[in-house]
Parts: sequence; C-alpha cells; structure tokens
Amino acid sequence: MHMDKQLEGLKFDSNGLIPAIIQDAGTHQVLMMAWMNRDSLAKTIETGQTHFFSRSRNKLWLKGESSGHVQNVKSIATDCDKDVLLIDVEQIGAACHDGYYSCFYRQHASGAADWKIVGKKIFDPAQVYKK
Amino acid sequence: MHMDKQLEGLKFDSNGLIPAIIQDAGTHQVLMMAWMNRDSLAKTIETGQTHFFSRSRNKLWLKGESSGHVQNVKSIATDCDKDVLLIDVEQIGAACHDGYYSCFYRQHASGAADWKIVGKKIFDPAQVYKK
Repeated sequence: MHMDKQLEGLKFDSNGLIPAIIQDAGTHQVLMMAWMNRDSLAKTIETGQTHFFSRSRNKLWLKGESSGHVQNVKSIATDCDKDVLLIDVEQIGAACHDGYYSCFYRQHASGAADWKIVGKKIFDPAQVYKK
Repeated sequence: MHMDKQLEGLKFDSNGLIPAIIQDAGTHQVLMMAWMNRDSLAKTIETGQTHFFSRSRNKLWLKGESSGHVQNVKSIATDCDKDVLLIDVEQIGAACHDGYYSCFYRQHASGAADWKIVGKKIFDPAQVYKK
C-alpha cells in the first residue's frame, strides 16, 4: 500500500511494528495501546478508522470489527524518535473488550493485594461479543 | 528488588520489558513512551520518580538525570492485558530532549512533504545538555 514521505520516515521495529497510543480526542483520556505495521497504518489513514496488527493472530484487524466500537481518527502524531504513534480518535462505544471505556481501568494501590478498578464499566462483554 | 503481588501479575515481553506511557497528571497530555524492566519499575515506585530501561545503552536511567527534568509519579495504571503501563506524572521542565514539553510534537499533515510541528519549544537543548 502507498505511504507518503512523512510515514516513510517512521521507525518500525525488527518485526515491522510500531506502538500506537490511542487517545480520546476530546478528553485526552488514553484508551489503549496496540501495534501497527505499515499496512495497518496505511489502512488507518485511507479509511479514517484505526486498524492494528495482531501479533497473536498474525493479521490486520479493524478496531471494532466484532463490537462495532470503531475509532474515528482525528489526528496522528509521532514522537522525537519517530518510533511511537499517538492517535487522537472519537471512540464509538468503548475501547476495552472488558467493557470499560479505556483499557487502563486498573490502578496500582500501594500495599493492596490487587489492582484497584478505577474505570467505569459501560457495556457487558457477554452481550456484545455473543457467539 | 522487591515487587508487590500486583506488579508480579504484569506481563513483561521476551526481553523483560513493558512499555510505559507517560502522561501529564493535570492536562492528560501524553508526554512520551519508554520501556521499563522490573528493576526500573521497582525503582520508580520506591523513589516516586520515573526510571526507565534504555535498550540502546542497556542500562537503567532516571528520567531527568542529565537535564534535571524529572517526573514525579502521581499514579500508575495498567491495561486489560497487563502488558502496558500508563503513568501520570508531574513533569518538571519538559519531557522531550528536543526541547518540547511533549515528545509528540509532530503531527501528520495529509499531502504535506513533512510532519507539522505542533509542539512549543520551551528550552534550548544545546544549553541544557552542554558538555
């Protein structure tokens, strides 16, 4: 797939991947981090919806393909080393397959036995991902 | 170094590393992403200032050790897969060694020849990192 000159300057790792941090364009809440290869980035730009590369399934996927919880891209930034992406999106539904708006719903609590749940569950995964 | 039960549940990759997204605790602006190993995470919690693991130098480093631009940790979150960290900090000075508050100071501009600089330079690297 065609990539413009800017994108050709990005540094993909030895597996051809770059981490993409996904952020709510309105509130700046960080929603998730996932990996992109060149094809998924090109597809993201072409369609305006985030596409990632799944390392476990070894394939490109549209975020929201099962749940309908797609992410409409507002802007794409990169860092000083050009080896990480930061993508502002409008999140439809929720980002996390566990039912939370953000995947970062657990906070470290000093001295506690387990992580503290700080996110709000906004859907029931059993309903959304039913077979 | 000692790690509590919560941290033992984190998934470090095959090199013993986990990506850490660093965010301004007040504005939620994403400042940078860097890698931590178990020691740098333990040291971060122990001291309250972010420590990372440099893959190129193969050593643990205190963010701000040269510049004085340290990050005081406010909270540590993890995602649904427990393989990424999101750390809220109070940033002293600026996060980026290029002189910008955030490392994500370049934005993709459709059809343009180069990335658009959207960050504001707040210090002169030549002054801060002089030999």
